[in-house]
Amino acid sequence: MVQSHHFGRARKSCIWSHINIDFARIFLLWFVIVFYALFGAAVFSALERPLELEAHCRWNRQLAEFVQDHQVPSEDLLELLRHYEKAIAAGIRIEARRPRWDFSGAFYFVATVASTIGFGMAAPATLNGKIFLIFYGLIGCAATILFFNLFLERVITLITFLTHRCRKQKQKTRLSKRHIATNMNTQPEHGDSQEDWKPSDYYVTLILATVVLLVNCGASGLYSAMEDWRYLESMYFCFVAFSTIGFGDMVSGQKAHYEAHWVYQIANSLMIILGVSCTYSLFSITAIIIKQMLNWILAKLLSLHCCRSQGCCSITTLKVKEPANQQIRNTSNHSGTCHVVKASLPSESKCKCASTAVETVCQSLDTANSCPSFELEIRDSYKLSKDDAEKEVFSAVSKNCHLSHHLSVQEEASAARHKH
Amino acid sequence: MVQSHHFGRARKSCIWSHINIDFARIFLLWFVIVFYALFGAAVFSALERPLELEAHCRWNRQLAEFVQDHQVPSEDLLELLRHYEKAIAAGIRIEARRPRWDFSGAFYFVATVASTIGFGMAAPATLNGKIFLIFYGLIGCAATILFFNLFLERVITLITFLTHRCRKQKQKTRLSKRHIATNMNTQPEHGDSQEDWKPSDYYVTLILATVVLLVNCGASGLYSAMEDWRYLESMYFCFVAFSTIGFGDMVSGQKAHYEAHWVYQIANSLMIILGVSCTYSLFSITAIIIKQMLNWILAKLLSLHCCRSQGCCSITTLKVKEPANQQIRNTSNHSGTCHVVKASLPSESKCKCASTAVETVCQSLDTANSCPSFELEIRDSYKLSKDDAEKEVFSAVSKNCHLSHHLSVQEEASAARHKH
Repeated sequence: MVQSHHFGRARKSCIWSHINIDFARIFLLWFVIVFYALFGAAVFSALERPLELEAHCRWNRQLAEFVQDHQVPSEDLLELLRHYEKAIAAGIRIEARRPRWDFSGAFYFVATVASTIGFGMAAPATLNGKIFLIFYGLIGCAATILFFNLFLERVITLITFLTHRCRKQKQKTRLSKRHIATNMNTQPEHGDSQEDWKPSDYYVTLILATVVLLVNCGASGLYSAMEDWRYLESMYFCFVAFSTIGFGDMVSGQKAHYEAHWVYQIANSLMIILGVSCTYSLFSITAIIIKQMLNWILAKLLSLHCCRSQGCCSITTLKVKEPANQQIRNTSNHSGTCHVVKASLPSESKCKCASTAVETVCQSLDTANSCPSFELEIRDSYKLSKDDAEKEVFSAVSKNCHLSHHLSVQEEASAARHKH
Repeated sequence: MVQSHHFGRARKSCIWSHINIDFARIFLLWFVIVFYALFGAAVFSALERPLELEAHCRWNRQLAEFVQDHQVPSEDLLELLRHYEKAIAAGIRIEARRPRWDFSGAFYFVATVASTIGFGMAAPATLNGKIFLIFYGLIGCAATILFFNLFLERVITLITFLTHRCRKQKQKTRLSKRHIATNMNTQPEHGDSQEDWKPSDYYVTLILATVVLLVNCGASGLYSAMEDWRYLESMYFCFVAFSTIGFGDMVSGQKAHYEAHWVYQIANSLMIILGVSCTYSLFSITAIIIKQMLNWILAKLLSLHCCRSQGCCSITTLKVKEPANQQIRNTSNHSGTCHVVKASLPSESKCKCASTAVETVCQSLDTANSCPSFELEIRDSYKLSKDDAEKEVFSAVSKNCHLSHHLSVQEEASAARHKH
């Protein structure tokens, strides 16, 4: 167990220092989301409202013209349209569509349930179907979430492996260019081995974004060819489907007939599975970037309101309370990422300021330790979010050091590679 | 760095021992999902197909009757119906509905985008709207995923806090019942402190499932009163909305007029936010349970095909290769959850078999160490999934020990509590 003792009365009297950082972050995120939603609502309203009003006017005109031209009692016509609303809900359209509930249709439906896309081109109409869906979806969605997470893990492993290969290759090329005849060993030094090295969050995000873009472009090409959609519309469909939003305004594979029907259905399924998995990975990594931004904002707020005005970021003490007989247990159980790192403050080391590179928490801790004036508050945990929490506290109290973020999956990836 | 050396030729010749456990798990999960989908497709097809055929017959009859009764050219009628299809896509219905793209409508739409529910009651019809959606959704969905994860963290913190309180209360009651006058100290012993103790996965799942059920029941009550849906239909809507499937066959808050309109809209929003957050948490925890099951199946498969037939689970050696000067670095950086745990095999300790309790990995490791015949393979990582991986390897090679699973968030939760 590690405890932090704050020295400085100013710090103690500051309200900001007593904020629970976890709650502060979730509330900050909440406000960001609400403002983002207000902004989005304003934009969408401005973009879509005119077309909606136009559609209403057009439909009223078309209906009136039909009643006038064919002398049909409007009550009868409205009754027919009510029937048609129900028919549409059951998947009926004027242009023939494929059956909703034959086996392959039901399989497509089930896939949209488990992946939480939920296009809604088919939805259970019977009460039994609805009840079954609740129990079926409960397991299905959880299993798919697990699949996406395992996929993310594999993707990170692959990215780490490939980027490490590239890095090694570059190093080799650089060394051979220098023609250092004496240095025959072109292997990277120990600290550069794969289990030590991890690509940065931003690098992983960039690679994943590129992959998602490529999958989107490829899939859009397929859909625009097969569904007669415009390319940009296909891109929109791909995003809506792959992000599991699934409005259902455009759904692939719904025509009654396609050229090479089965080939297209299989390609469609594979595209959706690949797209959803990759997009989920991208969202997860982007979420980490957003978390870093929140941490940065919180740190700025804390340092602005607490430290600068009251000068509390001065002397630090890190006390490691570790009963001798508990050492192994604590190290193993709480995994004590940084427990055994003693509070040493080597003044000769430089502070990595506003670094964008992703490092492990304890590299961050080293960085923190090498910073001249800061305060440490370590939490006895070894999980990702606690790592972040540690980092936040570091960055909150250290005015100049923006400690970088640790990406758990990268660590895992290198470990997995090490095992192979 | 920890390396495992296998002794036993039989093991070396066994193909199963060379399987990458991470790939094995994802492929096993994949097959489970595919079979689950096939089963679901068969059930839904059986339940829904008759109603679909009936709906087709009914609509054809209604259309034919209308054409016959009113002597309308069927081409003209079909043209009107095509127009109506487009009008429906723009949110027009015979029974007046609320506007889709006024500010509050757009706000509801944006919320369904960010949460990935995507009911589809409104979807951008303009090309600009579609392009904006892609960029808007990219950030929005990632931010919401982060929000759900932070919410999950808070929920686990709360559950750990409450269950720990209950536990302490029970212990106190038990002690006071015994009337041990001499023992004045009714405080729980050291090992029972909150940062040591965590509720089991199953317990957390049970509590979360109860919370989700209560939220669902409450929300269903609200919707069945306000939307004139049957209670079971409301339950179905709640599940579909809260799981972010969002078919859009039933959407709350779409009537043009409600009693206490604004109160209902706010209640509706709060219900959806609470429901989605809780259901996401439940799915995440259920995913962990499913992962445990997969690990158990993999362990069984491995032990059946490798160990039993070839008797490889006999003598084990755990070599800890830890350069002295790297000790701190490794412990802190790779966090080496179990690196410093030496391979001691106390024969007097008993093996916890098929335990359902959730323990930390290193408690599991202790258990593994106390098992008489097993083989250890430790990976240098400290993250949840690696913990699991370690556990898998342990359980894969130890015939009788079903090592329990570690829930990262619980660890975090206790750490967060510790910080307060």
